[in-house]
Amino acid sequence: MASVLIREAKEGDCGNILRLIRELAEYEKLSDQVKISEEGPCVVGYGLYYFIYSTWKGRNIYLEDIYVKPEYRGQGIGSKIIKKVAEVALDKGRSQFRLAVLDWNKGAMDLYKALGAQDLTEAEGWHCFRFEGEAMRELAGK
Amino acid sequence: MASVLIREAKEGDCGNILRLIRELAEYEKLSDQVKISEEGPCVVGYGLYYFIYSTWKGRNIYLEDIYVKPEYRGQGIGSKIIKKVAEVALDKGRSQFRLAVLDWNKGAMDLYKALGAQDLTEAEGWHCFRFEGEAMRELAGK
Repeated sequence: MASVLIREAKEGDCGNILRLIRELAEYEKLSDQVKISEEGPCVVGYGLYYFIYSTWKGRNIYLEDIYVKPEYRGQGIGSKIIKKVAEVALDKGRSQFRLAVLDWNKGAMDLYKALGAQDLTEAEGWHCFRFEGEAMRELAGK
Repeated sequence: MASVLIREAKEGDCGNILRLIRELAEYEKLSDQVKISEEGPCVVGYGLYYFIYSTWKGRNIYLEDIYVKPEYRGQGIGSKIIKKVAEVALDKGRSQFRLAVLDWNKGAMDLYKALGAQDLTEAEGWHCFRFEGEAMRELAGK
């Protein structure tokens, strides 16, 4: 297995990260939803893979995305990333982290379950809802 | 309809907010999951209702919980809260906000849909996953 370095992203990584975000969106069949705003996400790790996390001031970390380029899959890089996230979360005093997965992405779902995650949609019936754009402006009266 | 003030929480509100969190957990049949840590959540609004939001450095706001005490339901307070969240989110330059709902909570699901939210679990097949406690420590080797 290739040796893998997981590190925080630097400003110069932006171009590569954007390319990975677009590749992931294509894989998820959601390319039409990629909009890049000036306010960048908080990115940890990049290169052959990347993951993005967002923190809540309380006990949660929301993992936005994990992506490993196809040619580097099957080498345990996804597991290494999840392990790093667990380490970072515990170091920051968080007691859990969450992520969302598309139901046809069996590989990812099986991996997360094997690593000890609970599928809350399956186990408790949680649905993810999103408000955006026009609906938000209408609600806010703007 | 009662006149409703939506304001940011102050330190002195903590006791009331905790009571509302416990009431909500009971309603959601998840009382056994309520653990209060020292790092408090970021709370906006409280009293007859509350909502908690967490921000991502990028474009998202995750809405943790919305709760209106039973005796104050049916007066449009939930809609007012969602409208306030949309306003706060837009003011902070966010282009969307997300929340999770239990599938048996038809009242909440219908309200969010009526206000323009998309059910991503239904529409695109997103599942919510959670890592916590023992699984995290094992992953991190701690």
